[in-house]
Amino acid sequence: MLTFVGLGLWDERDVSFKGYEAVKKADKVYVEFYTSILMGTSIKKLSSFFGKEIKLLERKDLEEESWKIVEEALKLNVVILTPGDPMVATTHSALKLEAEKKGVKTSIIHGASIVSAVCGLTGLHNYRFGKSATVSHPYKGKVSITPIEIIERNWSIDAHTLLYLDLHPKPMSINEALEILLKIKDIKDSFAVGIARAGSSNPIVKCNRIGKLLHENFGKPLHILVVLAKTLHFMEFECLRKFANAPDELEKLVN
Amino acid sequence: MLTFVGLGLWDERDVSFKGYEAVKKADKVYVEFYTSILMGTSIKKLSSFFGKEIKLLERKDLEEESWKIVEEALKLNVVILTPGDPMVATTHSALKLEAEKKGVKTSIIHGASIVSAVCGLTGLHNYRFGKSATVSHPYKGKVSITPIEIIERNWSIDAHTLLYLDLHPKPMSINEALEILLKIKDIKDSFAVGIARAGSSNPIVKCNRIGKLLHENFGKPLHILVVLAKTLHFMEFECLRKFANAPDELEKLVN
Repeated sequence: MLTFVGLGLWDERDVSFKGYEAVKKADKVYVEFYTSILMGTSIKKLSSFFGKEIKLLERKDLEEESWKIVEEALKLNVVILTPGDPMVATTHSALKLEAEKKGVKTSIIHGASIVSAVCGLTGLHNYRFGKSATVSHPYKGKVSITPIEIIERNWSIDAHTLLYLDLHPKPMSINEALEILLKIKDIKDSFAVGIARAGSSNPIVKCNRIGKLLHENFGKPLHILVVLAKTLHFMEFECLRKFANAPDELEKLVN
Repeated sequence: MLTFVGLGLWDERDVSFKGYEAVKKADKVYVEFYTSILMGTSIKKLSSFFGKEIKLLERKDLEEESWKIVEEALKLNVVILTPGDPMVATTHSALKLEAEKKGVKTSIIHGASIVSAVCGLTGLHNYRFGKSATVSHPYKGKVSITPIEIIERNWSIDAHTLLYLDLHPKPMSINEALEILLKIKDIKDSFAVGIARAGSSNPIVKCNRIGKLLHENFGKPLHILVVLAKTLHFMEFECLRKFANAPDELEKLVN
């Protein structure tokens, strides 16, 4: 049996009662911080919270050597703790599929995800988000154009774009992400919202033109970014004014 | 102080430790089942779980008469429990905005949402979802064409569409929703995935052409629907085969 338990957004107390009980019943408990990171906790704190030994899975344990976990789950009751909601990361669905193919029963205990949390923090309407993308650190000096392609496709259907920021080798800041986007295309006059430390007791949410957001200080990670659609619902505008200190001129996007 | 606490997807044990602690500290606790419903619990069960009196908010308490809650939150520590993650429903962000405007401090304790859970249940990739929409019960014999417009816009950027199903006066079934979509446009050859009872221990997930899905039995509510993009990642196809009993012919969507 292989159970994926979502830890939610910030620290060990974001897990659900159901998730806690699954860990208590498990023969073996793993956690992975490869697909995302919980900034408010550590393996030590998690172990002490659950009263169990918890082993960290590295990237290779989840990918090339995932068969080891699957083998173990054929005999034991294995739990994998993941940041956010499991399966938003495609690494998890690949592992779930591999396990099921080998005859291992799998289940998911859902956790809070940035995918929905971003609506609460910004006031942006969930139904107005289009496809999402990841802004990656340059590789051998080259930057991926995918995020801009996705932003433009979303603009074509008047949708917002949620951009995940690369975590490896270290978590990317909103400022770094905006610089990368501007290298691909001059979108400095477009509006975006930067969100830092979602799920913590001191999240920061700021909305402005990209050219201005570039110079804001968002503090410690994790950061995430929303590039706004070309129009806003008036309630979205009102929320961004109040929750994200958006400038008055944002009002012209209201349709 | 006004705190929104997400209850997650199914029953009282889907709440996080942080959410539980917020309820314990509250002077007044409300719950609303207007924007969604937790099928696995009841007010009685919630009250007994939290060891507190919990009062049900009706639609009018959240909308026309929301000022009453805001007034109360000026003096007391008020918690509103909501299904899923708060703020995915726009009703909540309107209330949060109103409270902040009146000088009430607000905060959100996030919960698991169908928005991310649908990825785990289907294996569909989160970043490939476009805008979402709601399929509403016909009003005076007329059906809203919005869901089809959104599906077509999403198809234009090769994105999946998550469709919420109307809850009032009673939760719509996948079959009813498909019939409504087919009245607007003949999309019976397109592929969709029906999901019933997400977050429970016996969710049902089935993928097929809409014309065939129409005759499947999904059992008890809540139901939700994903209309697939015109292409699939091969891992999405493999997951749908394994998790949603998709037909072999779905393979031709893999690009």
